Amino acid sequence: MTAPKQIYRFHEGSAQMRDLLGGKGANLCEMARLGLPVPPGFVITTEACLEYYQRGHNLPDGLWDGIRMHLGEIEEAVGRRFGSDHNPLLVSVRSGSKFSMPGMMDTILNLGLNDETVASLAEATGDRRFALDSYRRFIQLFAKVALRLDPEPFEDALAEARERAGVASDAELSAADLEKILQQFKEFTVERTSAPFPSDPWEQLRLAVVAVFDSWNNPRAIAYREFQRIPHDLGTAASVLAMVFGNTGWDSGTGVCFSRNPATGARELYGEYLPNAQGEDVVSGARTPKPITELANEMPDVHRQLSDFAQRLEDHFADVQDIEFTVEHGRLFVLQTRSAKRTAAAAVKTAVDMAQEGSISREEAVRRVPAGDLSQLLLPRFDEAAKRRAVRDHRLLGRGLNASPGAATGRAVFDTAAVAAAVGESVILVRPETSADDMPGILRAAAVLTSRGGITSHAAVVTRALGKPAVVGCTTLRVDPHERRLSVEGIVVHEGDEISIDGFTGEVFSGRIDTVDPDLSANQELPQLLAWADELRRLGVLANADTPEEAQRALAFGAQGIGLCRTEHMFFQPERLPYVREMLLRARDISRPEREVGEPRAAFNEATGDARIAAEERLRDSPGARAFAAALDRLGEYQAEDFRQILRVMDGKPVVIRLLDAPLHEFLPSLESLSEVLRSSPAGEVEEKQRVLEAARSLQETNPMMGHRGSRLGLTHPDVYKMQVRAILKATADLKREGRDPRPEIMVPLVVAAGELSALRAQLQPVAAEFGESLGLPGIPFGTMIELPRAALAGRRLAAQADFFSFGSNDLTQMTFGFSRDDAEEKFLGFYLERGFLLDNPFERIDELGVGRLIQIAADEGRAANPALELGLCGEHGGNPESIRFCERVGLNYVSCSPMRVPIARLAAAQATLSTTESDA
Amino acid sequence: MTAPKQIYRFHEGSAQMRDLLGGKGANLCEMARLGLPVPPGFVITTEACLEYYQRGHNLPDGLWDGIRMHLGEIEEAVGRRFGSDHNPLLVSVRSGSKFSMPGMMDTILNLGLNDETVASLAEATGDRRFALDSYRRFIQLFAKVALRLDPEPFEDALAEARERAGVASDAELSAADLEKILQQFKEFTVERTSAPFPSDPWEQLRLAVVAVFDSWNNPRAIAYREFQRIPHDLGTAASVLAMVFGNTGWDSGTGVCFSRNPATGARELYGEYLPNAQGEDVVSGARTPKPITELANEMPDVHRQLSDFAQRLEDHFADVQDIEFTVEHGRLFVLQTRSAKRTAAAAVKTAVDMAQEGSISREEAVRRVPAGDLSQLLLPRFDEAAKRRAVRDHRLLGRGLNASPGAATGRAVFDTAAVAAAVGESVILVRPETSADDMPGILRAAAVLTSRGGITSHAAVVTRALGKPAVVGCTTLRVDPHERRLSVEGIVVHEGDEISIDGFTGEVFSGRIDTVDPDLSANQELPQLLAWADELRRLGVLANADTPEEAQRALAFGAQGIGLCRTEHMFFQPERLPYVREMLLRARDISRPEREVGEPRAAFNEATGDARIAAEERLRDSPGARAFAAALDRLGEYQAEDFRQILRVMDGKPVVIRLLDAPLHEFLPSLESLSEVLRSSPAGEVEEKQRVLEAARSLQETNPMMGHRGSRLGLTHPDVYKMQVRAILKATADLKREGRDPRPEIMVPLVVAAGELSALRAQLQPVAAEFGESLGLPGIPFGTMIELPRAALAGRRLAAQADFFSFGSNDLTQMTFGFSRDDAEEKFLGFYLERGFLLDNPFERIDELGVGRLIQIAADEGRAANPALELGLCGEHGGNPESIRFCERVGLNYVSCSPMRVPIARLAAAQATLSTTESDA
Repeated sequence: MTAPKQIYRFHEGSAQMRDLLGGKGANLCEMARLGLPVPPGFVITTEACLEYYQRGHNLPDGLWDGIRMHLGEIEEAVGRRFGSDHNPLLVSVRSGSKFSMPGMMDTILNLGLNDETVASLAEATGDRRFALDSYRRFIQLFAKVALRLDPEPFEDALAEARERAGVASDAELSAADLEKILQQFKEFTVERTSAPFPSDPWEQLRLAVVAVFDSWNNPRAIAYREFQRIPHDLGTAASVLAMVFGNTGWDSGTGVCFSRNPATGARELYGEYLPNAQGEDVVSGARTPKPITELANEMPDVHRQLSDFAQRLEDHFADVQDIEFTVEHGRLFVLQTRSAKRTAAAAVKTAVDMAQEGSISREEAVRRVPAGDLSQLLLPRFDEAAKRRAVRDHRLLGRGLNASPGAATGRAVFDTAAVAAAVGESVILVRPETSADDMPGILRAAAVLTSRGGITSHAAVVTRALGKPAVVGCTTLRVDPHERRLSVEGIVVHEGDEISIDGFTGEVFSGRIDTVDPDLSANQELPQLLAWADELRRLGVLANADTPEEAQRALAFGAQGIGLCRTEHMFFQPERLPYVREMLLRARDISRPEREVGEPRAAFNEATGDARIAAEERLRDSPGARAFAAALDRLGEYQAEDFRQILRVMDGKPVVIRLLDAPLHEFLPSLESLSEVLRSSPAGEVEEKQRVLEAARSLQETNPMMGHRGSRLGLTHPDVYKMQVRAILKATADLKREGRDPRPEIMVPLVVAAGELSALRAQLQPVAAEFGESLGLPGIPFGTMIELPRAALAGRRLAAQADFFSFGSNDLTQMTFGFSRDDAEEKFLGFYLERGFLLDNPFERIDELGVGRLIQIAADEGRAANPALELGLCGEHGGNPESIRFCERVGLNYVSCSPMRVPIARLAAAQATLSTTESDA
Repeated sequence: MTAPKQIYRFHEGSAQMRDLLGGKGANLCEMARLGLPVPPGFVITTEACLEYYQRGHNLPDGLWDGIRMHLGEIEEAVGRRFGSDHNPLLVSVRSGSKFSMPGMMDTILNLGLNDETVASLAEATGDRRFALDSYRRFIQLFAKVALRLDPEPFEDALAEARERAGVASDAELSAADLEKILQQFKEFTVERTSAPFPSDPWEQLRLAVVAVFDSWNNPRAIAYREFQRIPHDLGTAASVLAMVFGNTGWDSGTGVCFSRNPATGARELYGEYLPNAQGEDVVSGARTPKPITELANEMPDVHRQLSDFAQRLEDHFADVQDIEFTVEHGRLFVLQTRSAKRTAAAAVKTAVDMAQEGSISREEAVRRVPAGDLSQLLLPRFDEAAKRRAVRDHRLLGRGLNASPGAATGRAVFDTAAVAAAVGESVILVRPETSADDMPGILRAAAVLTSRGGITSHAAVVTRALGKPAVVGCTTLRVDPHERRLSVEGIVVHEGDEISIDGFTGEVFSGRIDTVDPDLSANQELPQLLAWADELRRLGVLANADTPEEAQRALAFGAQGIGLCRTEHMFFQPERLPYVREMLLRARDISRPEREVGEPRAAFNEATGDARIAAEERLRDSPGARAFAAALDRLGEYQAEDFRQILRVMDGKPVVIRLLDAPLHEFLPSLESLSEVLRSSPAGEVEEKQRVLEAARSLQETNPMMGHRGSRLGLTHPDVYKMQVRAILKATADLKREGRDPRPEIMVPLVVAAGELSALRAQLQPVAAEFGESLGLPGIPFGTMIELPRAALAGRRLAAQADFFSFGSNDLTQMTFGFSRDDAEEKFLGFYLERGFLLDNPFERIDELGVGRLIQIAADEGRAANPALELGLCGEHGGNPESIRFCERVGLNYVSCSPMRVPIARLAAAQATLSTTESDA
C-alpha cells in the first residue's frame, strides 16, 4: 500500500480535483495545463490537511520532505533559490478549500524574507523601499497568522509612524520609516514569544503551512461553514507559489478582470488594474485603480494577451471568469481564476447569451441563474453608494423586519389624516402597528414603517399585497403618534422630516436616499430565460392575488392562474368595513338559540329539536336578522363585482377563491381604542359605541390564530359563506353570458375533519344549485386548505370530500412549531437562528423534517384516496426556491406565490425539475 | 339453498343469539330454556328486519305465514284464540336489538283488541274498566307508532276527559269516561287516515311488526346510535309474546327486581312492585310502588319463587340481573332479564364479591367496573332528589363547563376581599375570570364560578389542582364584580346570597342544595379491586402534582410517582409573585445586548463577538442585574423548599419536574387593570406602576399559547432555568444527607428541535456539576415534553438527547387541531360535537387519527433512536379510560393524571392490558 500523493505540481492537477486541491489550487493546475502563465508552484492536498488534524496537529509523514523537494523544483524553474542572499526566491502560501470561503481562512505572502534576503531583494530589484515594504507586510501578516500575535500593536506602530511622517498611507512611508517599523515589529515578536522572529525561510514555510491548515478551524471559518452549510470535514488545501511582483516599476502592475461585465452581463473584458502595485494596494483603496480599457493603451500586448486568456478561460470553464493577474516587468502572470459573482441582471444576460452562443445548453442556462436573485430585477432599490454614505453619516436609525421589498424615501407621517394632507408628496406612514382603520393611509403612502408586529402583521400582509415597501417590527424605534414623532437613542424624527426605508434589508434611515429603478431594459433576456424555464418545468406556477390589479400583475409575470384569492382582504376595504361591522354585530344578536339555559345538549335530542327550529325561525324574522341580511346582501354585491373583475382578468385560467378566513375581531377596532372613544363620545352615540365595544369584547380570543375563524365560522354562521358562494356563482354566470370562460374554484380554510368539509358542502350546495351548478366532484372544484397538522393527518378522509388540497404552509408551520409568527420572529426566533438552535427560518424555507413530512403524508394519502386530487402550495414558501424544490420532490401539481415572485418560482420550478431528473438518473 | 330461519320459538333460541334475536329476545329464549315461566312467544330475527329493508319496506317472503303459524302455537299454549270473541288472546310486539337502546325504538302492547274482543275481555276478566283502559292504551300507542299519527290530539282528549271528570290520573277515569274517549280516538283516526281504526287483529299484528322494524330507523334511534357508536346495519328483532296482566286484581301485580342492590351492591333481592297494576303504572309515578320486601308478606310464594329465579339468573349469567316480572292471579311470569345498571359503588362491590364468591374470575371483576365511574366514589355530590327539586323550582341559573368535579353550596362573593371577610362561612367565589391575583380567594373559597374561560383557564387548572369544585365559562351569566352581583334573564344574585354549583355537570343553581359525602365505607372492596388491577396492568400510573399535599393525595390513591410537577404553579403563589414580577421587570432591563441598532446579526459574526461579551459582562454588573439576581435567589430558596417537601413525600419514587412553562405575561396584572390603577395612583407610585405597565405591554403576545414560553424562555433567559435546576439539586442533596432516596427527573417543555434540547443541557449541566451530578444519559434523567407536532415529528433526533419523552397531550391536541382550548370549547367545539362534525371532544378522548398518530410516530422513532427511552403521557387524557387503552396499544411506559383520577387510571390500565392481551390472542 503506497501512501496517498500529498503534493501535486500544477501541471499534475486539474479543475476536476476541487475536493483534493481546493477550488483555488485546482484552477491553478487547470490554467497550468492550458499553458497559461501561472507562476511555478504546487498544491498540498486537503487529505494532507485532514491527516494533520488526525495526528493531533502534526504534519503527516513525508510531507515536509515532499515540500522541500517540490520547492526545489520551483527554484529550478525560476532560477532563484529560497533563502539565498542573491536574488532570493519568495513564495506565497495560500489556503483554498472545495467551496469558496472568501476571507475566512489565511494566506501568507512574501514568505522567505529575513534581514539577509531582504537586502538581496533590494539589490536584485534595485528598489530598497519595495523590499523593506514587502518585509514589513510579511512580518505583520506572519506574526498575526502563524505566530498568532495580537495584531493591534503592529497596526498601532504603523499608525504612529504615519503620524510621525505626516503621511496618510503606508505607501508614502520612506525606507527609513520602514526600517524603524521593522525594528519595532521584531521587538514586539521577541517580547510576546520570548524568541526572535523566525528568520529561517524553511521554518517560516513550515509554520505557514501549519497556519494555513489551522485556519480551516478558526472560529470565523467554522461559523461561516455553519452559516453556509459547508461540511466541517473537508479540510483546506495549501498552494505554494513563487511570488511575482506587480510593484517593481511602471512596466509592472496588478489587477482583476472579468470575461464579461459582472454588473450588466455585457460581453466585454471588464475590470481594473493598478500599475506598479501589489494586490493589497487595490484592496486598500489608497490608490484608485484604472479601468481595464486603459491597459490597452498602456500595455497593449498585455491587454491583448489578457483578453485572449479571459476568452480561453471562459470557453474552457463555460462560465464567466473572475481573473486575478499580475504583470512583472511586462510579463503577464495569471494568479487565480474562478466563476464570477454577478448581479442578477448579469446572471440572466450571460446565461441567455452563452446559451445562444452555443457554449452552454438551455438547461444549463436555466440552472445557472440563482432563482431568488431575480427579485433584484423587479423592484426599485436604493443606490448602493448613496446607502453606504448614509451609513457612514450615521443616518441608520434601526433595522426591523424586511416585510415587503422595495425602497422608498418620503416624509414621515403618523396617521391617515396626515397622509391625506400631504397631497402630491411622497410620504411614509409610521405607526406603532396598523389596523384596518389605517387602510386609507396605507393605500396612499409610499411605504409603511411600524415599530411592532411581525412578518404576517396587518402592515406586512397588506403592503406585500399592494407591492409597497414596508419595514415592520423595528422595535428599537419609539413611535409616538400623539406627539407625532419617532425617536431612537436621542435622535428624534418629527412629522414632515424625511426618512428612507429599505424593504429588502429592513433598514431605516433618516433623510433622503436616492433610489434607482430596476434596469429592466438591460434584461431583455429575462423573458427568454423564463420561456426556457417554462418548457422545462413540471410544477405549475400560480399567484396569490386578491384584487384585479394584482391579478393583472400576476398575469404579466406569467402566472398560470390564481392559487389563492383571499376574500378577507376584500372585507378590509374601508368603504366595506361598516357593512362588515354591521354584519358582525347582528350575527351576535341572532346567535344560535340552542345554547339557551338548561336546554339539553346531547346529540340525540337534536334530531327531535322542533323547539330549536322554531326558535331559529323566530330569530330569522327579527329586526336584527333583517339588518344582518341587508348588510350581507350589500357585501355580496361588492364581492360579486370583485369576483367578476378578477375572473375576467383570469379568463380561461383557474382562480382558487378562499372563503373568509380571519378572526372576526380583526374587523372591529381594538378594545383599547374603543374604550377611549367611548369615554369621549357625545351622549347620543354612547349606546351604539357601547354595542360595538361589547361585540368586540365577545369576539376577543386568547389565541386568535387558533380561534373561531375560517370554516369554523362558516359552520356556525352559514350565511357568510353562502353570501360568498352566491357572489362567486353570480360573477361566473355573468361572465359566461358575456361568452367568457371563468374558472372559479372554491376553497374552505382551516378544516381539521372530513365532517366539516362534508357539512360545508351540504350547506353550500343549494346555493350552487340556484345557478344550476354543483360543488365539486366534478362540478365547480371544491377543495380545502391544509393548514393544520390534523388536516394533513386526516388527508385520506378529506381527500374523499375534496377536488383539491392547497397547503397553507404559513399556518401549517405556525401550528407545527407552535410559533406564533407575529410574536416569534421578534421575541426568540431571531435568537434561535443566530445561535443555530434552528438552522433555517421555517417561515422562509419549508421545514422538511416536520412541516414537510406532514405535507408528504397528506399528499400521499390524499392521492391514494382520490387519485384525481389536485395538490398545490400557497404559502409564502411557494416563492422560495428551496421550498419549490421540495414541492417538486413531493409531487405537488403547482405552487402559488405573490405576483412579484412568479418569475422566481417559474425559474426555481424548472431548476427543481432539472435537479430531480438528475438525481433520478 | 334453504331460506334462513326467520322466526325462533323461545325454546329454540339462547342468550348467545343476541345478534340474531336482539338482547331482549335472546334473554327471553334463555329464560325459557332454563324453565323459567316466560309467557309463550317467539322472536322474529334481525335478519328478517334487514331483509324487510332490502326489499323496500316489504316483509320477506314467508314471514307472514310463519308469524301466523307461530301465533297459532301461542294460542295452543295458552288456550285462547287471537281475535276470538271469547276470552281472546292479546299479544305484545316488542323491539330489541343487539345493543340496548332504551326507549329509542317502539313496542306495542295489548294488541288484538277491537270493539268485539274488548267486550269479551271485559267478560272474561269481569273487569270492564280494565278492558276499556287496555283498549284505550292500545289505540293510543298503535295510532302513534303504527299509524304514525300526531299523538297530541290523543293526549289533549285524555287531558280534557280528566278535567271534565275532575280527576288527576288516568287510573281514576270511569268506564263511561273511557268509552267516550275511545269514541274520540276512533274519530281522530278516521279523520286523519280516511279509514276506520284497523279492527282486524291480524292486520294490527302485521302493522305492528312493520312499525317495530321501521322504528330501527326513526331519527331518535339513528341519533342515539351515532352518539353511542352503534352500527346502523344491525336491525332490530321483534318479539311477540302472549300478554299477561298484572292488573286483574289484588292477587296480581307487576314489578322490577334486582338480584343485588344496584345502588350499594349488597347481596339482597332488591326492587319494587305494584299490586293490581300494569308496568306503565309503575313508570308513570301515579301510584307509589312498594319495596320488594313487602312482597314476602303479601305473596310469600311469589317472593320465594322470584328470589330463586333472581339467584338462578344471576348464577347463570354471572352478573347482577335486572328482572321485570308480572303476577297474574298469583302466577309469576318473568318478562325480561338483563345485566343491571348499577352505581359505581355497587359495580365495585358486586365485582369483588362475585370474584370472591368464585362466580367470576379476578380478571372479569376488573373488566366489569367501568373505570370512569370510579370518580363518583371520590367526591361529594349533590343529593339527587334535592337537585331534581331545585330544577323543578326553576332554580337552575345556567350551565357552564364542568371544569373541576365536586358539588358545593355557599354564599356568592365577588372578590378575594369578600372571601376573607366571610370567616367561617362556606363561600363560592364568582368572577368573570380569575388570575394569579385571585389565588388567596380561590384557596379559601369552597368553589369557584366564572362566566368566561375554558377547561384550561386559570380557574379551571387551579381548582382541579386543589381538588375544589368549579364551573367555568358559564357565558349566560352576567357577572358584575363592581356591583357585586350576577344576573341572568332577570334573576339577580347579590353578594351573600346562596348559590350551588355542580362541578360534575356544570350546573349552577340559586339557593342551597344539600350535598352527600361519598360513602367510601360502602366501598371497602375498592382497594381489593385496585390491587387486582395493579397485578394485571402493564402501564405505570403516575400522578400530576405540584404541591406536597397533592403528592400526598397521589400516593394515597396509589400513584407510583409524579409524572408531572409543574413549577409555574409554585410561581403563582401570592407571596412569591412580587419576586416573580421583580425578576421579569429586571429581565427586561438586562435583555440581550446583541439586539442593538445596526449590529450585524449574521451567525459568523457571533463567533468573534468580543464586544457582545463585554456588553453582557457590563450588564451583569448593573444595579438592575443585581436586583434580578436577588429576586432569582429568593425564588430559588422557595423552590428548593417546594422540591424538598415533594421529594420527601415521594421518597424512592420518580418525580418528573417540568421547568417553568407559562407565558410570562400571566405573572403580571392585565393591561386593562394596570391602566386603571395607573390613572388613580398617587404621584409617588406612578413611575413604578408605569414600569410595570410597560413590562406587561412588552410581554403581551398575540397568541400566547404559541409564544415565548417554555424552553424558549429557558434559552433566552438562562438564569431562570439555572435557578430551578439548582433548587432541584439542592433539595436532592439535602434529602440524600438525610438518608433518603430522592429521585428527581428534569423535564423541559415546548421543545421543537434537538438543537434546543442540547443547548439547554449544555447550559444546565454546569449547575448539575456544582452538585457532582450529571444531567441525563445516565445521570439525573433529563427529558422533554412532546407537546408540539414538530417535536413529535423530530422524535428520532430528540430521543438521542433525551432519557424520556412525556407526551403533553393537551397542548399537542391544541396545536394539532389549531384549537385554542380556552376559546374553542366556548365558541365552536360544543357546536361541532352536537352536530357530529367531530365525534369526540379531542380534549377528553385522545384523537387517534391525528394526535395519536403523532404520538405513535414519536414513540416508534424515538425508541428506534434510543431503545432506553422512557415514554409517558401526562395530559388530561392520562385519566381517560379510552385514551389509556390507546397508550397501552402504543406501548407507552406510563400515564400520569391528576391524583383524583389515579384509581381510574389504575383500573383502566388493567382493562387495557386485558383487552390488548385478548386481541393478541
